[in-house]
Amino acid sequence: MTEDTTTAEKSADTKVTEAQSAALALANLSESARNEALHAIADGIEARSEEILEANAKDVEAGEEMLEAGEYTQAFVDRLKLSESKLESIAAMVRSVAGQEDPLGRTLEARRLDEDLELYKVAVPIGVLGTVFESRPDALVQIAALSLKSGNAVVLKGGSEAAHSNRILYEVIREATADVPDGWAQLIEAREDVATLLERDDAVDLLMPRGSSEFVSYVEDNTKIPVLGHTEGICHVYADEDADLSMAADVAFDAKVQYPAVCNAVETLLVHESVAADLLPDLAARYREADVELRGDERARDIVEMNAASEADWSTEYGDLILAVKIVDSLEDAIDHVNTYGSKHTESIVTETADHAERFMRQIDAASVFHNASTRFADGYRFGLGAEVGISTGKTHARGPVGLEGLTTYKYHLEGDGQLVATYAGEGAKPFLHEDFAGEWSPGRLSTE
Amino acid sequence: MTEDTTTAEKSADTKVTEAQSAALALANLSESARNEALHAIADGIEARSEEILEANAKDVEAGEEMLEAGEYTQAFVDRLKLSESKLESIAAMVRSVAGQEDPLGRTLEARRLDEDLELYKVAVPIGVLGTVFESRPDALVQIAALSLKSGNAVVLKGGSEAAHSNRILYEVIREATADVPDGWAQLIEAREDVATLLERDDAVDLLMPRGSSEFVSYVEDNTKIPVLGHTEGICHVYADEDADLSMAADVAFDAKVQYPAVCNAVETLLVHESVAADLLPDLAARYREADVELRGDERARDIVEMNAASEADWSTEYGDLILAVKIVDSLEDAIDHVNTYGSKHTESIVTETADHAERFMRQIDAASVFHNASTRFADGYRFGLGAEVGISTGKTHARGPVGLEGLTTYKYHLEGDGQLVATYAGEGAKPFLHEDFAGEWSPGRLSTE
Repeated sequence: MTEDTTTAEKSADTKVTEAQSAALALANLSESARNEALHAIADGIEARSEEILEANAKDVEAGEEMLEAGEYTQAFVDRLKLSESKLESIAAMVRSVAGQEDPLGRTLEARRLDEDLELYKVAVPIGVLGTVFESRPDALVQIAALSLKSGNAVVLKGGSEAAHSNRILYEVIREATADVPDGWAQLIEAREDVATLLERDDAVDLLMPRGSSEFVSYVEDNTKIPVLGHTEGICHVYADEDADLSMAADVAFDAKVQYPAVCNAVETLLVHESVAADLLPDLAARYREADVELRGDERARDIVEMNAASEADWSTEYGDLILAVKIVDSLEDAIDHVNTYGSKHTESIVTETADHAERFMRQIDAASVFHNASTRFADGYRFGLGAEVGISTGKTHARGPVGLEGLTTYKYHLEGDGQLVATYAGEGAKPFLHEDFAGEWSPGRLSTE
Repeated sequence: MTEDTTTAEKSADTKVTEAQSAALALANLSESARNEALHAIADGIEARSEEILEANAKDVEAGEEMLEAGEYTQAFVDRLKLSESKLESIAAMVRSVAGQEDPLGRTLEARRLDEDLELYKVAVPIGVLGTVFESRPDALVQIAALSLKSGNAVVLKGGSEAAHSNRILYEVIREATADVPDGWAQLIEAREDVATLLERDDAVDLLMPRGSSEFVSYVEDNTKIPVLGHTEGICHVYADEDADLSMAADVAFDAKVQYPAVCNAVETLLVHESVAADLLPDLAARYREADVELRGDERARDIVEMNAASEADWSTEYGDLILAVKIVDSLEDAIDHVNTYGSKHTESIVTETADHAERFMRQIDAASVFHNASTRFADGYRFGLGAEVGISTGKTHARGPVGLEGLTTYKYHLEGDGQLVATYAGEGAKPFLHEDFAGEWSPGRLSTE
């Protein structure tokens, strides 16, 4: 049908090298060309929905056999399964990525170093992204769309359980983006290919692993390439002595129950000892009604009957309807607990006292620190970052929820008219102006043409 | 004298852990406290100059023995040597770091997610920096000053040839910063301690190795910690067919001769074939006068007598008065050559044609791309970034010359009045506002206090 049918025969090394070659040309593709290509992907998904659903049916069939064998959960098979309406929403997602503001080409800073010597810091793509993601066919399309929008070439590795779906979706994307520099998106399938990908620090500029914390840690342990990902989400809500207790109960409930499987859900509730007796009984009843298992320290268990928390509970990401509860003597104890056991993801204090909020937010080392709001707000969409690329628990490059900007870097453009450093050095050196100004880079604006 | 005398007995592991403990408190030290501590360091260096010079004399003496034995160069020993005036300029450098704008606490973005739900992105320190640097006693003071200004704890490892100087300078810094959270700066000395440092990804957030490209590569190969450094500086000047030839000659001369030992000096001159015969003879004569050895491809040697360049020359960072010269047939050939052999550091085109400049600057993948200016401008000071922390050839976090901003990350602060995600999800979800506004985070500004 197309050259994509040879995909399986090319080595992962070759594919990474092809992505690297495509990246330079892709970096300069106009915004309109990138957006047109994204619309073509969306159209292609709709036009070829029958084929896609047929391929997906093979994955789902295999998944259901594994479900019967007790290997997979129903939720896993549900995530694997595509439908006409799901394909429509995937196409809509791609069109919405096309509609996002262009992350490329913006002049981030402009500075006049001297008369007719102008420095511009311009947003550009990072280059080649290496991605490994879970067995959801929509993940492949989403990651390809975000990469294309941000002008990055991408190597895609999906879960093997979605192999048939991934192959047809990749083919649709390749066909729809025939005008994009050839090789910009590459599909790898074998587990060994991931090892190859991790070794190619000469060609891959950023890795984006998704999936379990263990997998992200494995990636970090086995590559020199920078990794954008989050390893754990051990988030806390702290009900301060000066909390509005009804607000504290609502925030703590929302943070656990609204969607317990995600990384920004709360895992440990910290309660100041002076309000514990007022807060806990009603809140525990609400949790019980929502099937939340509570595991408390001794003082919490003195107030409400619940299971006993062990030391391991303070550093466990349940990702489930389980909540650890601890009574603390002071704001300082709460801060210490979070800095000791937290994963630097998202931490929330409920208090009416501004000074307490300030100390909590300043003294805790986490990507997101909240005052009187649910930890579940830590999310690219809710933060208004547009499409979410991922969440990072790293402290360099990008931190917390990451939008398309996280897939960009910058280049310094200097426009001169023949300036030499010798003029600005040594005895009688000419001083620099170093004046920031509002301006966009326009190539050769100082040249004589 | 102080507890510093026990420094040598503590293990590197303990020191890294102490830095980690100090980092949290240091992150919240006020700007005035950080600046006062910097001034105290400068004062301490001046007040204890005799002791410092005595200690330095031991290093210099040992260095001179090695010089006589032919192990060290005179330049190496010169860099090792301190003097009253050099100490004064080191103290002045520390005061100038104190005078820089505070890189911390700035609100980088403010966005209203909804009424009374405000998100602030605030600049904060990265945490713990691990630094390994060359045998220049001034390097220790500079790195400690930059770390303190940016609120980061730091582990310092200097060259063993400067051990006596480093010890006394470290002691002066420790004494002068008694009001800074204890343990914020740590000195490690043994080569094995570097291995320990590289393993502590649990505690160290960013590594800044300085020295040879080989050493930086070694660090990258042996750690999971993000690395800020540059491995090579293979920079080009391209004299286009539409170049002002007198400008091209001046830029190419400055880029090589003004300071050949540094990473932003040019290593290969590319010349369009149509101007080579006009440009090269005079320029070669100027280079010869400045003792520059030229190594040309065949066509360059047809025009001017020079040594022959081998394939290896195109990818060699000379750091010396040697320049490779290549004739190219087109702008595209020049771009291809740079993308093949360059190190993504700094590239310059000399041309009067804006479109040629644009293509060169857009299609070359490098941190800095210049039009009609010497590559030697690629430098934090000249770029107006204030104190230069380093130059990065990486593409994530920071790229090109890096100022104090490169030692910061950010935290998201969310101020609410009890908002729940359940309100904004599912059927009848409340829409977000997502309005950017100009505002600084002020803790608890929405709280009822």
